[in-house]
Amino acid sequence: MGGDHGPSVVVPGAAIALDRHPESKFVLVGDEAAISPLLDHHPELKVAASIIHTDVAVRMDDKPSQALRHGRRKSSMWLALDAVRHGQADVAISAGNTGALMAMAKFCLKTMPGIDRPAIAGIWPNLRGESVVLDLGASIGADAKNLVDMAVMGATMARIVFDLERPTVGLLNVGVEEIKGIEEVREAGRILRETDLQELDYRGFVEGDDIGKGTVDVIVTEGFTGNIALKTAEGTARQIGEYLRAALNRTWRARIGYLLARDAFNVIREKVDPKKVNGGVFLGLNGVVVKSHGGADAESFASAIDTGYDIVRHELTAKIASSIARERRAESSLPMQAAS
Amino acid sequence: MGGDHGPSVVVPGAAIALDRHPESKFVLVGDEAAISPLLDHHPELKVAASIIHTDVAVRMDDKPSQALRHGRRKSSMWLALDAVRHGQADVAISAGNTGALMAMAKFCLKTMPGIDRPAIAGIWPNLRGESVVLDLGASIGADAKNLVDMAVMGATMARIVFDLERPTVGLLNVGVEEIKGIEEVREAGRILRETDLQELDYRGFVEGDDIGKGTVDVIVTEGFTGNIALKTAEGTARQIGEYLRAALNRTWRARIGYLLARDAFNVIREKVDPKKVNGGVFLGLNGVVVKSHGGADAESFASAIDTGYDIVRHELTAKIASSIARERRAESSLPMQAAS
Repeated sequence: MGGDHGPSVVVPGAAIALDRHPESKFVLVGDEAAISPLLDHHPELKVAASIIHTDVAVRMDDKPSQALRHGRRKSSMWLALDAVRHGQADVAISAGNTGALMAMAKFCLKTMPGIDRPAIAGIWPNLRGESVVLDLGASIGADAKNLVDMAVMGATMARIVFDLERPTVGLLNVGVEEIKGIEEVREAGRILRETDLQELDYRGFVEGDDIGKGTVDVIVTEGFTGNIALKTAEGTARQIGEYLRAALNRTWRARIGYLLARDAFNVIREKVDPKKVNGGVFLGLNGVVVKSHGGADAESFASAIDTGYDIVRHELTAKIASSIARERRAESSLPMQAAS
Repeated sequence: MGGDHGPSVVVPGAAIALDRHPESKFVLVGDEAAISPLLDHHPELKVAASIIHTDVAVRMDDKPSQALRHGRRKSSMWLALDAVRHGQADVAISAGNTGALMAMAKFCLKTMPGIDRPAIAGIWPNLRGESVVLDLGASIGADAKNLVDMAVMGATMARIVFDLERPTVGLLNVGVEEIKGIEEVREAGRILRETDLQELDYRGFVEGDDIGKGTVDVIVTEGFTGNIALKTAEGTARQIGEYLRAALNRTWRARIGYLLARDAFNVIREKVDPKKVNGGVFLGLNGVVVKSHGGADAESFASAIDTGYDIVRHELTAKIASSIARERRAESSLPMQAAS
């Protein structure tokens, strides 16, 4: 029921994803009266889908506390998460209110053993391909341990999603020297340098422009900064797009030029298109949750489903659990932190 | 002597700025043997300039502590700041090492009465024009009071640079609701809401994509996040530029289209060109310091000089001092902070 368009995007999105992964089954949670008629347009999905009916839906502008108060145990968001908790579904996918989804997911699924805070990971296009960037806003005020956990979780996701042996990992900072930045980041850097983690290749600090360059496969940052970096990048992309649109419309010459080069522009639009990289993955919970953009269309929502499908097929949750356990063992062999 | 190119950029940059402001005088600080021959190519600048010779220069990779140790009282950077302290110059402009410049500026010029931490303010192009964004990295770990001071200093700068009566100000956050984000930002928001500041129109929280939209004239954030937002935006702009270049080179059709639309592309390049907006302004010190990009060319360095010229002509430092004094009076009439 979530997002700007509700079932009118979710149902056709599921139909597109089903076409790509015909063995999938869908549990559609929400108002049956709204969902059922849409299924009639997608006969294959109708066969592969069941409906869990509820009248209650979390609103896009509900605060997390409101959503929990009014929506726990009865809203479509909660029931979708509950389906994951009870093994009726392998992954919950929502285009709804992010803060409410995270609050409910923590409440319903709980964090994994050893993890204090979940994180939201996104797939970010860059000049070398794509990278995993986390946290995009779940764990505001993360400490050094949280950042190290994110490095491990992000690397596990990158191994699966990008099919890499040993992803490279960087900590986002304001400079590359070890003395730079806030204490939590410096301390996380020290732990990652000194701990020998098999699953990831820690490359030190990276700066904001390294995200676009694709210097590393996984970029780790605390959620406040991560959220602002993500939105600043989105804003910059939109800003340049607007400049282009205006400039290419200004003269006849430019308009003809645009028409000739249109295929080129379409290539770029594809590359920076959020549709292709839709899906923030909640990491560190006992179950997989994927958050689609609220403004997603059917194609874009299908892409969030694809992300969930990939992650479940490769058993992300189990792999993170064993990576975190190995990290704990490696850390326990570290010398105590030097007094600062 | 600073930046990637030293006097070979600084001297012709000064010549360009002199041409625009013929009443300016220049004090060139550094190695006379390197500076003098360059002045021969710029006879007007030669008349308007004096040289303070020193052999010592801060290196681009010196840590602030190293720079202070080796460069205090004798490096070109220090002597340029010292010229401001002693009234020989109205503004110091450097393309050198940012961390070293800030450390030396704090040491040499000291912070203004009532200001704990200086901030670096930049002028950021957006869809409505330009805005002042601060802090870009000077005050990592700013508290609520520092953020409020930055709002006042940034608004004073925006009044001068954009010629506005009462600039609009936003605090950068991960959402627009009052309950969002880290505590320092929420508390700064409370103070700005409750204090009636004549010089600025506080508009509440803004998000990362509001920077590119130009939602407000002044965007305030703590330095860690500000630095990462700036570099992320630069990286995104470069990334899209690379995509464009590659795509427009792929086919003959696209290449011809590009040639026809080239003027349009030049318009955009102008808009996002750091040359046009070069110059981070150090706010909150007893004197004006402008930091040019290290990689600036002569045109770009001249633009940093222009920024310094504007700010000095409009007496930024004195205006900030009186705004801060008014802010303190307004704050002292506020009720005590509610226990949280």
